[in-house]
Amino acid sequence: MTLLDTITGPRDLEHLDEEQLQVLCSELREVIIETTSKVGGHVASNLGVVELTVALHRVFESPADRIIWDVGHQCYPHKLLTGRREQFHTIRQSNGLSGFPKRQESEHDHLDTGHSSTSISAALGMRAALDLKGDAGKVIAVIGDGSIGAGMAFEGLNHAGHLDKDLIIILNDNEMSISENVGALSKYFSKIITGQVYNRFRRDLESMLQSLPRGERLVRAAKRVEEGIKGFMTPGILFEELNIKYFGPVDGHDLNSLMDFLENIKQIDGPLLLHVITRKGEGYAPAEQNPEQFHGVGPYDRKTGKVTSNSSVPSYTAVAGRAVVELGEEDKKVVTITAAMPEGTGVHHFKHNFPDRFFDVGIAEQHAVTFAAGLALQGMHPYVFIYSTFFQRAYDQVIHDVCLQNLPVVFCIDRAGIVGNDGETHNGSFDLSFLRCIPNMKILTPKDENELYNMLLQARSLDSPVTIRYARGSGFGVEIRREPLDLLSWEVVHQGKKPVAVLATGYLVTQAKQLCEEKGVTLINARCIKPLDATLLDKVLRENRRIITLEENSQMGGFGSAVAQFLCAGEYQARLTSLGLPDEFISHGDQQTVRKRCGIDLDSLKLTFKELNI
Amino acid sequence: MTLLDTITGPRDLEHLDEEQLQVLCSELREVIIETTSKVGGHVASNLGVVELTVALHRVFESPADRIIWDVGHQCYPHKLLTGRREQFHTIRQSNGLSGFPKRQESEHDHLDTGHSSTSISAALGMRAALDLKGDAGKVIAVIGDGSIGAGMAFEGLNHAGHLDKDLIIILNDNEMSISENVGALSKYFSKIITGQVYNRFRRDLESMLQSLPRGERLVRAAKRVEEGIKGFMTPGILFEELNIKYFGPVDGHDLNSLMDFLENIKQIDGPLLLHVITRKGEGYAPAEQNPEQFHGVGPYDRKTGKVTSNSSVPSYTAVAGRAVVELGEEDKKVVTITAAMPEGTGVHHFKHNFPDRFFDVGIAEQHAVTFAAGLALQGMHPYVFIYSTFFQRAYDQVIHDVCLQNLPVVFCIDRAGIVGNDGETHNGSFDLSFLRCIPNMKILTPKDENELYNMLLQARSLDSPVTIRYARGSGFGVEIRREPLDLLSWEVVHQGKKPVAVLATGYLVTQAKQLCEEKGVTLINARCIKPLDATLLDKVLRENRRIITLEENSQMGGFGSAVAQFLCAGEYQARLTSLGLPDEFISHGDQQTVRKRCGIDLDSLKLTFKELNI
Repeated sequence: MTLLDTITGPRDLEHLDEEQLQVLCSELREVIIETTSKVGGHVASNLGVVELTVALHRVFESPADRIIWDVGHQCYPHKLLTGRREQFHTIRQSNGLSGFPKRQESEHDHLDTGHSSTSISAALGMRAALDLKGDAGKVIAVIGDGSIGAGMAFEGLNHAGHLDKDLIIILNDNEMSISENVGALSKYFSKIITGQVYNRFRRDLESMLQSLPRGERLVRAAKRVEEGIKGFMTPGILFEELNIKYFGPVDGHDLNSLMDFLENIKQIDGPLLLHVITRKGEGYAPAEQNPEQFHGVGPYDRKTGKVTSNSSVPSYTAVAGRAVVELGEEDKKVVTITAAMPEGTGVHHFKHNFPDRFFDVGIAEQHAVTFAAGLALQGMHPYVFIYSTFFQRAYDQVIHDVCLQNLPVVFCIDRAGIVGNDGETHNGSFDLSFLRCIPNMKILTPKDENELYNMLLQARSLDSPVTIRYARGSGFGVEIRREPLDLLSWEVVHQGKKPVAVLATGYLVTQAKQLCEEKGVTLINARCIKPLDATLLDKVLRENRRIITLEENSQMGGFGSAVAQFLCAGEYQARLTSLGLPDEFISHGDQQTVRKRCGIDLDSLKLTFKELNI
Repeated sequence: MTLLDTITGPRDLEHLDEEQLQVLCSELREVIIETTSKVGGHVASNLGVVELTVALHRVFESPADRIIWDVGHQCYPHKLLTGRREQFHTIRQSNGLSGFPKRQESEHDHLDTGHSSTSISAALGMRAALDLKGDAGKVIAVIGDGSIGAGMAFEGLNHAGHLDKDLIIILNDNEMSISENVGALSKYFSKIITGQVYNRFRRDLESMLQSLPRGERLVRAAKRVEEGIKGFMTPGILFEELNIKYFGPVDGHDLNSLMDFLENIKQIDGPLLLHVITRKGEGYAPAEQNPEQFHGVGPYDRKTGKVTSNSSVPSYTAVAGRAVVELGEEDKKVVTITAAMPEGTGVHHFKHNFPDRFFDVGIAEQHAVTFAAGLALQGMHPYVFIYSTFFQRAYDQVIHDVCLQNLPVVFCIDRAGIVGNDGETHNGSFDLSFLRCIPNMKILTPKDENELYNMLLQARSLDSPVTIRYARGSGFGVEIRREPLDLLSWEVVHQGKKPVAVLATGYLVTQAKQLCEEKGVTLINARCIKPLDATLLDKVLRENRRIITLEENSQMGGFGSAVAQFLCAGEYQARLTSLGLPDEFISHGDQQTVRKRCGIDLDSLKLTFKELNI
């Protein structure tokens, strides 16, 4: 029986002495490493906040005090301390605990999260509501140094400083978001941390002034000019200028210091920020040494830190990364942009080969897209690498800054469709729907990794905004080789004898091939979702009695919807069945299980054939 | 022949002496007032930047130096100086000049704009491209104090400070975005301007230190600690901390000072910001006194400043504003949120009645939505007032922070559909498409102002995310009275005898009524776009041979698309014709002209009837 086993909720921390709390921290690390080594998950971020979580739950009174975890990929210690120890082994698996905070799991989870930089805004909204209700509970937002650089977080800070309400912001600074941190703000944090020279100078000056004949008057003058002196006295002047009191920095692995600081700031009114320095992966050597790899990881050998089962088939991500490097060699105008995801999207290879043409803008999807527009306006060929779910953040910029001007920006949209264990906040379920309505946008979906490779190489030739969307995970192991591709036309993969045609998109084409051949059903690779290949679609609708569309996107407004509109407009006789994601947020589980649950795996297609007597 | 008439391009400014430049400024104001009093437009913002525009074009060399106007509603003096004097009377009218920068109009326009806060990102992208090409042309972003508070602008600043490339940012500070400015940043600017005490203290201190025995050493120490001393020396420390050099403030109506400052900063490397203080409406008393009204205005009497033809029928905006005030009286949990648009959306009445439950977050749509989520999470009933086109900025927040948690936030989406003279950047053409794919979202479209009123009053009862989208402009003059409304069911407005049914949305229902009655065609008020009224839709599809859908939204993925999917899924025999906005960016002109051009006015419906022999 460990100490952790005795913790049924945060109130049980009250009875522990300092030594026991330290033991508890070790036990939390042990459980996190043991569990994630088996089922994967976010390792480095969770190991980094063990002491911080213990200190927060010791000092504050959850759930009356509301702790909001930005992004939420650091909530494992929180879950372990709030009554979810026993289910913890189910984390991220189908029907198990979510890897992110979920209100339905616990009264200690106050906000469902997954995307970054929402915590300050949500916490401020809660604060405003609590004030209207006369509820004195504290609201605490815990946000990383990468996340606080996003525009949305700044909007929250700006409003928090304006409203001047009680709000505690914990800046969890590990000098690394998912990948290496970028941005002037990040440099600024480093300066604060290393800026002890600052404080030394300040002390020198003050004592010197005091000791001088006219010194007292000067010190008094200084106090009057409060803003000036504040900037001089405290390292966090940037926040102070926004009317947010700055405290710290404090060592985030020194439990006692942390608790002292938290006890103190608990008493202080108005918006404030406590700067906590943590180390990703703290306490587990492989994660400390390689925090990028251990950000989100599959099962691994806990002794060596080696990921256990790595597919030998290259992922779509890897192929996209390779293609853009080749492009970069051939065309000096190719530039790449990512929002804090160089490794996740595979574009880090380009970074290493062409550092002056690579731009990681940090967690700033809006800026990433408009920055790309600026590059395109001056003749560059920008490739923007981004996950489907985070692409939502830049929706207005795609419309207003890229498509309105019909600029040749290529969006390489990774993790489209079902992502699996990260669940509902990370699925790329909507991109076909929200992109299809944008004028000038062209949307491509490769049937396999080789088609992705060729689409990426050839997308520039369309001289317009292009989105290439592809799935998370491995391809089919097909040969990668250059092929001419008519990007805007569809491909007849198999011509069947029955008057039935499957119009499939993305990897579903390849997955359905054998089945369609067996059934004598025509299979079309609808590689271009917008524009539709009107010529071939017309032919297919005339030649077949039954059309089945297949897409890993919401059924609402996606590819099936486009075909339905075309069919109705042309007044064809063919009947349409559309398979796609249901109109709901799709929870976590391994990718294949979730796909089955959603009715878009191969068995679902078989079942559809059966129901239609095909 | 005025001086302005002799200006064919910015190079002609070189020959003018200071006195002539002043005369030119007066003439620019005269033309702007004379023209806008006839055709309407953005008055206050343009009058505010007359000297700034003249100074920029005198000091820099457009188009080799690229001047980027954020939002772009202050580009009239720029247009008048860059060869568009003769066409200026056509501004904002069909086939005339746009009210915003447009690349196709002039080589001096480098970025199409309309939405705020894009200039820094786009300018930085251009800068990066020019550097790669070895082009030494300057890039200058002119951005307002309201716009620079948006998260996107911060992302741009953060990246600019990081990249450390040559970039000139002109902060056009009129202490007012469209409405009164909010946010800690805005207060910060005010402090800078009034903060001369700062500089006095700095001078005092420095000379005092110099005069002391050990003073020299101290001053040297201070110089070494460059960050510290910078914060002490300059008012713009917030920007300096982000590695952006700060200059100013300078009086934006003092042409000589402006030109001096611009000449100086032209020589300086790296990212820098010049803080310019301007006054909206400068030089025209009615606009100076009432800059909110003169932000965007219709034709007005230039002597009195009175808007000439104001409809006596209340606008949808006014009715929405009234409804939410009544709600606020009845339910203390009702709170309202707007992003810098209290007057534009009519929610300023609520502000005056319930100031503690009203939140204007500034130009920060992302924060507005997640802040509302926070309020809802703690039991409030938030109503978010926003224009359709700006709602795009908060797309991810609507999905991730509101709909994922199924929170009862009501989005009151004004200016949905065709807005008219502001043109392609301001049309709300996409909301039905991009909202329809979001799980849990309900979407309502009122047929007239009374239905809007009742929808607003009753939307809370749905206890889920709700969007009410309504058009710009006046209603039909119908009586406003409380009526029970089944929000999720459709209404048979007219039961015709022919087997033809029109399924219309929003104001198009009321507009089509008489015609449908005359033609003996059934007219349905499809007041709920999501979910569809499946029962009535099924009945209509069974009872009719021809269905016509009507919507003021892109045909791609909107209401017609939803009906097409339903029709295909149910394998009905009925035929469908869908009228909606074409798949293109729709340029400016008066609202009715544009609607006709798009084929969604009453004549277009008549034509459709004719083509279908109805």
